[in-house]
Amino acid sequence: MEFKIEKELDKARAGTIETLNGSIETPAFIVVGTKAAVKALTPEQVSSLGAQAVLANTYHLYLQPGDKVVKEGGGLGKFMNWSGPTFTDSGGFQAFSLGIAYGDSVSKISNKETVSRLNNNNLVKIDEEGIDFKSIIDGSSHRFTPERSIEIQHNIGADIIFAFDECTSPHASYEYQEEAMNRTHRWAQRSLDAHSTDQSLFGIVQGGRYEDLRKESAKIIGSMDFPGFGIGGSFDKEDIYTAVGWVNDILPKDKPRHLLGIGEPVDLFGGVENGIDTFDCVTPTRIARNGSLYTRDGRINILNAKYVNNFSKIDDCDCYTCKNYTLAYLSHLFRAKEMLGATLASIHNLYFIVNLVKDIRKSILEGTFFEFKEKWLGMYYKK
Amino acid sequence: MEFKIEKELDKARAGTIETLNGSIETPAFIVVGTKAAVKALTPEQVSSLGAQAVLANTYHLYLQPGDKVVKEGGGLGKFMNWSGPTFTDSGGFQAFSLGIAYGDSVSKISNKETVSRLNNNNLVKIDEEGIDFKSIIDGSSHRFTPERSIEIQHNIGADIIFAFDECTSPHASYEYQEEAMNRTHRWAQRSLDAHSTDQSLFGIVQGGRYEDLRKESAKIIGSMDFPGFGIGGSFDKEDIYTAVGWVNDILPKDKPRHLLGIGEPVDLFGGVENGIDTFDCVTPTRIARNGSLYTRDGRINILNAKYVNNFSKIDDCDCYTCKNYTLAYLSHLFRAKEMLGATLASIHNLYFIVNLVKDIRKSILEGTFFEFKEKWLGMYYKK
Repeated sequence: MEFKIEKELDKARAGTIETLNGSIETPAFIVVGTKAAVKALTPEQVSSLGAQAVLANTYHLYLQPGDKVVKEGGGLGKFMNWSGPTFTDSGGFQAFSLGIAYGDSVSKISNKETVSRLNNNNLVKIDEEGIDFKSIIDGSSHRFTPERSIEIQHNIGADIIFAFDECTSPHASYEYQEEAMNRTHRWAQRSLDAHSTDQSLFGIVQGGRYEDLRKESAKIIGSMDFPGFGIGGSFDKEDIYTAVGWVNDILPKDKPRHLLGIGEPVDLFGGVENGIDTFDCVTPTRIARNGSLYTRDGRINILNAKYVNNFSKIDDCDCYTCKNYTLAYLSHLFRAKEMLGATLASIHNLYFIVNLVKDIRKSILEGTFFEFKEKWLGMYYKK
Repeated sequence: MEFKIEKELDKARAGTIETLNGSIETPAFIVVGTKAAVKALTPEQVSSLGAQAVLANTYHLYLQPGDKVVKEGGGLGKFMNWSGPTFTDSGGFQAFSLGIAYGDSVSKISNKETVSRLNNNNLVKIDEEGIDFKSIIDGSSHRFTPERSIEIQHNIGADIIFAFDECTSPHASYEYQEEAMNRTHRWAQRSLDAHSTDQSLFGIVQGGRYEDLRKESAKIIGSMDFPGFGIGGSFDKEDIYTAVGWVNDILPKDKPRHLLGIGEPVDLFGGVENGIDTFDCVTPTRIARNGSLYTRDGRINILNAKYVNNFSKIDDCDCYTCKNYTLAYLSHLFRAKEMLGATLASIHNLYFIVNLVKDIRKSILEGTFFEFKEKWLGMYYKK
């Protein structure tokens, strides 16, 4: 893997990541294909809307169909028919959050509840060696360690993979954050030691919302022999401008930085402004399937009665959906529960976010990032 | 509309239907897009797999989003972004069968049950003027008459539309079939009288499984001023070779004949052999969504455990799905309940059926239909 920075504007940068399966012009939004499929879309649809790379989840693929099946199928890209760059996360976040949530509708819960539920039913157990967790599919018992996560990610075979980490809630106590962070650092070294392929293994910085912990984590992880970095944690809005900035002031400048699981427009601007190169997030497709659509002046819900007879397009947008379909038709598809509704809405939302980040990149190259940010956010959040 | 026969082989014929929105080379399988959407597919995917035309259901579009919304949206083709020829059925079949089935999982029930349920709960009432029925969506009351069906089909705006008819069960008594048939004949004339656009209105032949009724219906409907015909009824397997043949011996040879709602491979061969030009059927997409896939030697179910590790393609087939995905990947998508599974399976099944009918057409043009039929059916039904 190679990373070249083409232009810097304060902490923001525009560059290119070269992987074994093609390049990613950064800043870039990486589309999530949790189970080796971007929900409701073919790879050609994902590619046509401008996406450069796909991120799949190690936890999900390990459980179903199993990392060995993905390996036998030629690895993630070939298995799912995606010819561009691919990422997998380490599985740590899901083992922890979904393990606890098994049988519930909850997918992210704060640390206090976690601890009480851990004590009550032992659904997840973290020790120095790794994490014991229950499958979200059938409740069966499993164990991830740094070595096992790397082995699974080798089998899945993505271009960019992540060190095994513990993701904590931003509301966890200082003491717990410190303990988890130190464990994550030891796991990072074990992940590095277990890594043996030509895939690019990124280290993950943790440390919650505490400046000294974030800086310490950036210093330690940043000094390890990783070709790139992820910044982990369940962020609150304000953390993008604090924690991300603290970390990126310390991480080596010449290596790419991925902000894990973040994709709200304001956070994309904030992340880039603070030195982030790549993002991934399920939000654009998840809200699309519920009928929530991005427009230049905020989200709309297609199930609103006023769209039944509205023969305009969603927005002034060049996506496939906006070029060919009206709000009235989309409204009909969602009301009639036609799967095509999820497909068309996902195409629009992903196009919106992927191309927003492309426009951000362009504004860095042109030196107009801050003006673009102010204008764009002013319109989007004006309501 | 124009219909040209290019070649005849006994009763089988290969021809071309010219509509205002393009031509259909016949015999042809018309893809069903019940609610102005082919389930799980974009129009480009439908077109790429070889489909020439789409049939939507008047009953469904009348209830949701309403025929006036479709009209305001530019008519069926423009509303759903399908640029080729379009069909709508008359709504009679669904008003009857779905009206009765409201609140049930049943969608087709035999006449005896129908009559008893009619008496019990008055969900559907047929009289000389039309049909009173309840909405499958909310149970609300509605009425279709021949005039209303034609008005709704004018609003929806398909190229080929159908006269309002009563579809009976093949198990109905002779007396009931005769009564329903005579009513259908009167409704056919009223449909013709109500028709005033440049859409092509096809008459529908009924008469159940009785030779004298089928022949009488073909004679009466065939003598009316329709540019083409539909053959209606819930057929049993053997009826394709009897009822369809009786009817097509009488219908004017120079007008196209559509067999409503039939799409099993053996029936496609039987229909063509007995003079059918076009078919429509939900089966290929409906079974696809349940994981049932066509292969040259019969159907397979992708949920079968043996496909989890099978990295072959579904079949020796040139469809998008077979060119890019393995059985193992499809198995994974279905097990993981990924919508993309329904999309890929629907593409394969529709490609299979649409191109089977194209191959049948080719065999007529080449004079090898009967050899092709014997060989093809021998392999498909050998199990």
